[in-house]
Amino acid sequence: MTGTPLFERMALIGIGLIGSSLAQAARERGLVGEIAISTRSPETLRRAEELNLGDIYCLDAAVAVEDADLVILCVPVGANEAVAKWIAPALKKGAILTDVGSTKGSVMEQVNPHVPDGVHFIPGHPIAGTEQSGPDAGFASLFDQRWCILTPPAGVNEQALEKLAAFWRGCGSDVDQMDAKHHDLVLAIVSHLPHLIAYNIVGTADDLETVTKSEVIKYSASGFRDFTRLAASDPTMWRDVCLNNRDAILEMLSRFSEDLSAMQRAIRWGDGEMLFDLFTRTRGIRRSIIEAGQETDAPDFGRHAKD
Amino acid sequence: MTGTPLFERMALIGIGLIGSSLAQAARERGLVGEIAISTRSPETLRRAEELNLGDIYCLDAAVAVEDADLVILCVPVGANEAVAKWIAPALKKGAILTDVGSTKGSVMEQVNPHVPDGVHFIPGHPIAGTEQSGPDAGFASLFDQRWCILTPPAGVNEQALEKLAAFWRGCGSDVDQMDAKHHDLVLAIVSHLPHLIAYNIVGTADDLETVTKSEVIKYSASGFRDFTRLAASDPTMWRDVCLNNRDAILEMLSRFSEDLSAMQRAIRWGDGEMLFDLFTRTRGIRRSIIEAGQETDAPDFGRHAKD
Repeated sequence: MTGTPLFERMALIGIGLIGSSLAQAARERGLVGEIAISTRSPETLRRAEELNLGDIYCLDAAVAVEDADLVILCVPVGANEAVAKWIAPALKKGAILTDVGSTKGSVMEQVNPHVPDGVHFIPGHPIAGTEQSGPDAGFASLFDQRWCILTPPAGVNEQALEKLAAFWRGCGSDVDQMDAKHHDLVLAIVSHLPHLIAYNIVGTADDLETVTKSEVIKYSASGFRDFTRLAASDPTMWRDVCLNNRDAILEMLSRFSEDLSAMQRAIRWGDGEMLFDLFTRTRGIRRSIIEAGQETDAPDFGRHAKD
Repeated sequence: MTGTPLFERMALIGIGLIGSSLAQAARERGLVGEIAISTRSPETLRRAEELNLGDIYCLDAAVAVEDADLVILCVPVGANEAVAKWIAPALKKGAILTDVGSTKGSVMEQVNPHVPDGVHFIPGHPIAGTEQSGPDAGFASLFDQRWCILTPPAGVNEQALEKLAAFWRGCGSDVDQMDAKHHDLVLAIVSHLPHLIAYNIVGTADDLETVTKSEVIKYSASGFRDFTRLAASDPTMWRDVCLNNRDAILEMLSRFSEDLSAMQRAIRWGDGEMLFDLFTRTRGIRRSIIEAGQETDAPDFGRHAKD
């Protein structure tokens, strides 16, 4: 893509998997003029520079956002408030401030009070990622054909909203809008609960006395290994998600546990019909996900192709 | 591989994913002379013939096993007893009888009483599969670099055991031995619990009123879709597994639920440290599984390579 970039300067605060992928996507597709990168760890900042992810590198986030017309917070959601306080005085009038966090209610609550007049704060969440983290894990096509959800506050500047949406579309995403509360409920079921369940079952397996860890590893192809991908995700990010979307997560965990108890009872009492019915209706959802272009239709996630 | 085949005639009772893959692996690698295939559905039998999976096709399992020196039951574990009764009178003296079921205690209990003298019954379980089922889903390399567990009964004929192990090694597998009870415990955690959890979470998501099914599908790349693969597995097979490995599954479900309650409590009370610790120790297991050659190290199961 050539022509005038959408933004003259983009500042990325945090340069992990998402920040690094955004830098590469925006650069490759000509969406921004300059890229300023800030992160609190000097090692990570140096690594970002080695990878040539940006144009300006600084440990001081307030310096990075100076003159930026697009500022994206790419830190774990628990760090958003501190970062917002830090950069607020340095934000340029007319700039768009957004984030990529997995919880949106908390971000609205924690960041909004610090946003200066004249800055357009529009939270966002790209539904994309891998189990890897850090600047080396990023790649330009991460957002291709993935959804990005924006949760604009009431009274949002429509022009700013459209510009941010255009940026995400430029990164390859489809853009959706919803309110922050609904976002948090949707993500609790499609993302947060799956990660917690995955972490939990890997923990349960790790604790067994009767089955050795080497047995779990050897025979993991029979199902277990599918869960280990999510359970290898960034611990800080996921701790923060739990602490910042508590109510929706507890609601989904309760429903899941109730359903699990019903299944446990069916197994105990040999209710084959109930089990068969459940095991049948779950097939259709995968088919729909494949049809929606959100999953590969190759058996075993296509792993065999790589053997 | 050329030379004398290990068995002159192999009979496969049942020709789903595993039976079909066995037929193709055994043929391709010259492990057997002739292949006789039997299945109770005329349509499936016809399909197996169209796919040219064997040499002899019959609806009567007792006819298929005549003159076979290797008989492999490839039916859902709940069907093993009826099949054993059916074929018992027709089994050839000196033949090896085995199966591929995911539960081994039940198979010992249900099949053993019907095995005639002079027939070597050695239960087996290849730790391999995909979420697809039926004869079309099979492929010759399914067992490559996967484990096959044999659970020989006390007093097994060592020569027969070695011959069966050689067959599985010929199919590409590594062969392990353990007793049936331990097998069922190991599989309950590495396979049965993961499948049940996957079925359960997909069911929970399907039942929500506040989040629409189309939202679950659109945003599934954030974690949920990983679970839908296991939840697309064959319902009959999995109902039978639940009914035939009840005690071990209930034990693992209880442990999982206890751990989930502890996690739920940590989320409710904001215990970030407990969450961070759990989320950290689960990373190592995935690394070990990749090192053991049981998983791809490409991010996202290598899905991006196929985009």
